[in-house]
Parts: sequence; structure tokens; C-alpha cells
Amino acid sequence: MSGGRRVAAFAPASVGNVGPGLDILGLAVEGPGDTVMAEWSDTPGITVLEPGHPDLPREAERHTSALAARAVMDRIGSAALRGRGIALSVTKGLPLAGGQGGSAASAVAGAVAVNALLGAPLDDTCLIDACLAAEETVAGRHADNIAPSLLGGIVLIRCMEPIDLVRLPVPEELYVTLVRPEQRMRTADARMVLPKEVSRSVALHQAAQVGAMVAALALEDYALLGRAIDDRIAEPARAGLLPGFVEAKAAALAAGALGSSISGSGPTVFALARGRESADRVGAAMRKAYAIRGQSAEVLVGRVDRVGARVVEDTGMGR
Amino acid sequence: MSGGRRVAAFAPASVGNVGPGLDILGLAVEGPGDTVMAEWSDTPGITVLEPGHPDLPREAERHTSALAARAVMDRIGSAALRGRGIALSVTKGLPLAGGQGGSAASAVAGAVAVNALLGAPLDDTCLIDACLAAEETVAGRHADNIAPSLLGGIVLIRCMEPIDLVRLPVPEELYVTLVRPEQRMRTADARMVLPKEVSRSVALHQAAQVGAMVAALALEDYALLGRAIDDRIAEPARAGLLPGFVEAKAAALAAGALGSSISGSGPTVFALARGRESADRVGAAMRKAYAIRGQSAEVLVGRVDRVGARVVEDTGMGR
Repeated sequence: MSGGRRVAAFAPASVGNVGPGLDILGLAVEGPGDTVMAEWSDTPGITVLEPGHPDLPREAERHTSALAARAVMDRIGSAALRGRGIALSVTKGLPLAGGQGGSAASAVAGAVAVNALLGAPLDDTCLIDACLAAEETVAGRHADNIAPSLLGGIVLIRCMEPIDLVRLPVPEELYVTLVRPEQRMRTADARMVLPKEVSRSVALHQAAQVGAMVAALALEDYALLGRAIDDRIAEPARAGLLPGFVEAKAAALAAGALGSSISGSGPTVFALARGRESADRVGAAMRKAYAIRGQSAEVLVGRVDRVGARVVEDTGMGR
Repeated sequence: MSGGRRVAAFAPASVGNVGPGLDILGLAVEGPGDTVMAEWSDTPGITVLEPGHPDLPREAERHTSALAARAVMDRIGSAALRGRGIALSVTKGLPLAGGQGGSAASAVAGAVAVNALLGAPLDDTCLIDACLAAEETVAGRHADNIAPSLLGGIVLIRCMEPIDLVRLPVPEELYVTLVRPEQRMRTADARMVLPKEVSRSVALHQAAQVGAMVAALALEDYALLGRAIDDRIAEPARAGLLPGFVEAKAAALAAGALGSSISGSGPTVFALARGRESADRVGAAMRKAYAIRGQSAEVLVGRVDRVGARVVEDTGMGR
């Protein structure tokens, strides 16, 4: 192992809480993501050289990327460091707290980079576990961004204890439109408005929609996929926190989106569409809906990222 | 149309509330079912010649089969009767109120027989609607027995208003074991114990299990199918009404069942198994568990019925 070896890992954006799948359905999106470079350092432990954004902490115990790196080290054992430390440099391609899984992507990229630097001793389940430990500190114990950002694709979280993930089929022509209006919001605030209890009929309706989404993905039934994006737990509770959401969603559906809802806890809104042209039209319509209200909004259109996190640079030998 | 024409329709047994799919997942089971013969009669309207069981009412307005026949007539228009009536004779192959969809099968067979006698003007959606109207009077508005009994297979009820059904893939080696202990119970009592509200975490866990069941069926992942049969809404509430259930379920799992839960609202218990031999072993183990408690129990093992309701006799010309 050369003292100057560097490994960089990239992790894609993701949509958490996909439609009715609050906390249990996530998908990765092709395009921008976060990149974390891990390199050997004379400073013991994990340090952050570059946090990736002026608003992000330099302290290793407060940056999700460093927290994930540390959780990876906890699982490997610090003997692997041989007295050295690891320094991280984060390049944020994703907005902070935007509902595009930026925090999860930083954690995943940090975990994958450090794991690779140490010869990749941890498997995906261990890496998810490490990222969960990191994310828990910042945003609660949820895998619906971490799992797709690490594994790619569309992932159902069947169970958290023990973690049991199901990789769902991804229809060929499925596109995702992400529209992020200018608004900062904290995941914790968005969680607070969620109802602690729901009626049995709402619970069963929600379960039926999740089942229908999975069936639609497996059967490549795009229309059913759209009908199943009918969230009666989180969306009604959070819509009021998101100025312009109702209008953007209506514009998406009018422009031909299969379905649309809040991405993660917002403010990003996602829409699903069949084919690139439709997804672009949907994005333009949503941006326009925000513009009419005087809000600017960024549009991102991509397919589902089927690869997930990957090492994008490794100066080391033999790998 | 000959005055003496008779049409008989058969509808299979079904499991409602499959595992986590309370009100939303049902499957049809190969083997016994209910048969309804419809024939022209000089008595106007719908009459019941033979109710199928001494405990079942002869009054057309109280027998699900006649109620469904009447609902079919309401949708076709009574002009089609040309002043004649239709008489029904019911042959019950399924137990009353046993949790095997007997009430739904009688309704479905009645609806299909009458529809066929009149030249089959109604499609499946209209027939389901008619059966729902009939079942509503007796057991509440639920399609999770009616839909699989009519259509066959495993059916997800995505939405009731308007009705939106999803026919799910059926893995080749899937077998169903139904075990019915000696106990009569009313669906209405079983509904009363269901919680009106559930915590958000229970709701989301239940939704994840329904999603995982659908994924397991599509991916032919038998182990996942078993793990997903984890109902935290109905089973905990109803287990106390069903002496021997806990023991029978434990015996099923110990004997190799993929999963097991209450069929419909019980007392029948279902188990899913991979392959006939396994399903038979599971059935024997469950019967033994009841026997140890001094309860006798009937065992039925079959594949998923993929055909659903069908006309089994038609004395008319050209159908």
C-alpha cells in the first residue's frame, strides 16, 4: 500500500419515500451525486480536509461522510489503519437537505471510499449498516436513500431489524424528473408533521399502493405505476410545508407524468414519466408552475441509476 | 332460448386477507368450491330452490347467491327476463363462515350462472361490482375473496372506488394448505376486534410486507414470500379469538411452511409451501397441533386456482 494512495467514490442522488413508500421505497437517479476522496493521512482517525460546502461542518463527528467512514472503521477494526489516519475530501454534487438524498450520498461515498482504500473487506450489508449508523445521527434511522444510493436501482426496505432489502425490477423506459424549488428545510421538521397514528383504512390503502407499485414495476405497467403513487400518510401532512408543491404536482400530471409526489421530505418534488421526452416536458411544466408563483426551481431529469455507488478513482496498485 | 335451459357455474375457495394484505390481497385455491345452478322459472324475479345448507336462508334477499344474481339483473335490466324469473340451486362445497371464502364463492357462482343464462352481457368488472353489492349486505364491502374467486390467481385490490384489481404472478411451485378447526365464527365479530387506528410504524411495516409479497411473487423468491407474511394489524388482534391458531401456525413453520396466518377472518388457517410434499407435511403438522389440543381439523391442500369461476354445465344451445 503506497502512502500516497487515494481512492474516490461516487454515490448518486436518490428519491426516498417514493410515493406511498414512506421510509420503505427509494430509487437512485442517474446524474449528479456526491464524491468522496479518501487518502492516507498522518493525523490519526478520520479527518475532513474538505467538507464539500461552506455550510457543512469540518468536524468529523458531525459530517455524515466522516461518520460513515468512522462506522466503516469500527466494523473493520482500527488495526487496519496501522497507526495512520484517513483524510476525506468531499465534493458535493447534490444540494444540502434538498430531498435528493445528498446526506445519504455523502455517507455512502465516504463509506465506499474508505472501504476501498482498505481493500474492500466489508460487503454491501455491512456498508449499509455503517451508513445507517452515520445517518442516524443526522436524520434518523432510514435506509430508503442509503440503500438505492449504494446499490442502485429501486429498493424496497422490507425490514430494518435485521435489514432486509428487496431490489425491484426497473422498467426500461422509466425516467425520473426532480424539481427543486428555492427553499431550505430540515428533515427533522418534515418528520415532526407526520401523524403518529393513522386509521386502519389509510394504512391498508397505503399498503395496497405499495403492493401495486411493486407489481407495476415487475409487470412494466406504467399506468398502474402512476395510479399507485397515491400517498395518504406523508404527502397530505407535508404539502403545507412546501409552497408551490400542489401546483407543481398538478402541472406534472397535466404534462403527462405517470405520478408525482414529494422526494424524501422535500422540498424537491419528483415525477415519474415514460420516456425522456415526456420527463423533460414534465420538468418544464413543473418549473413553470413554480415560476408563476415567483419561485425559481432547478430541474434534473434522469433514468434510474442501476449501478449505485462506485469507485471512480484509485491511485493504488492492484485494484 | 329454451324454457328449460339450465346453467351451472362453479367458483373456487379463496384465502382473503393473505398475510399482511388485510382486505387487499386474496388468492383462489384449487379444489372444492360452490356451484350454483340457474334455470328459468315461472316465478318472477330471483328465487332460491335449494340454499345449499340447512343453515342458509331460502329468502332471496338474504342468500348471497341470490343477492348477487339480483345485482346482476339490476345491471342487465329486468327487460332481459321477459316476464320470467330465475331459480337458483346452490351446492355448497365450502364451509359456512369458515374463512375459505364460501360466502364470496356462492355470490360469484350465482352471478356467473345468471350472467351466462342471459348470454353473458356483463364483463368481469361488472360481475365483481354485482358480487360486492351482494356481499356488502352480509360481510361488508371487501373484494379480497370475490376477486380471486371470480378471476382466479392471486389478486391485489389496489382501490375499491373505482375498483382497480391487479393480477399478480403465481410462482409455479406455490401450494396452499388450508386447515379448518371445528369452530364457527362470524366475520362481523372478527372485524370488531380490528384496531381502528394503527401507529405509523406499524402501517409502514405492513405496507413494506405487502410490497415484499408482491416482489416475491414476481421474482419467484419463496423465502422472501415467507418472510413477508408478517401481519401486525389483523393477526395480533384476531389470534385471541382463535383457539389453537398460535400452535397451528408454529407447527406449520416448524414443518417447513414458507409462512402462515389466518385465512380471511378465520377460523381457517392458511400456510404457503413450496411443492406438494411440503404442503402436505405442513397440513399434517397443523392438524396434529389442533389434535393435541383436542380440536379436530380438516385439511385441504391445493395449488393456486388460476382459472377462477367457470360455467360447468350449460344445457342451452350456442351457450
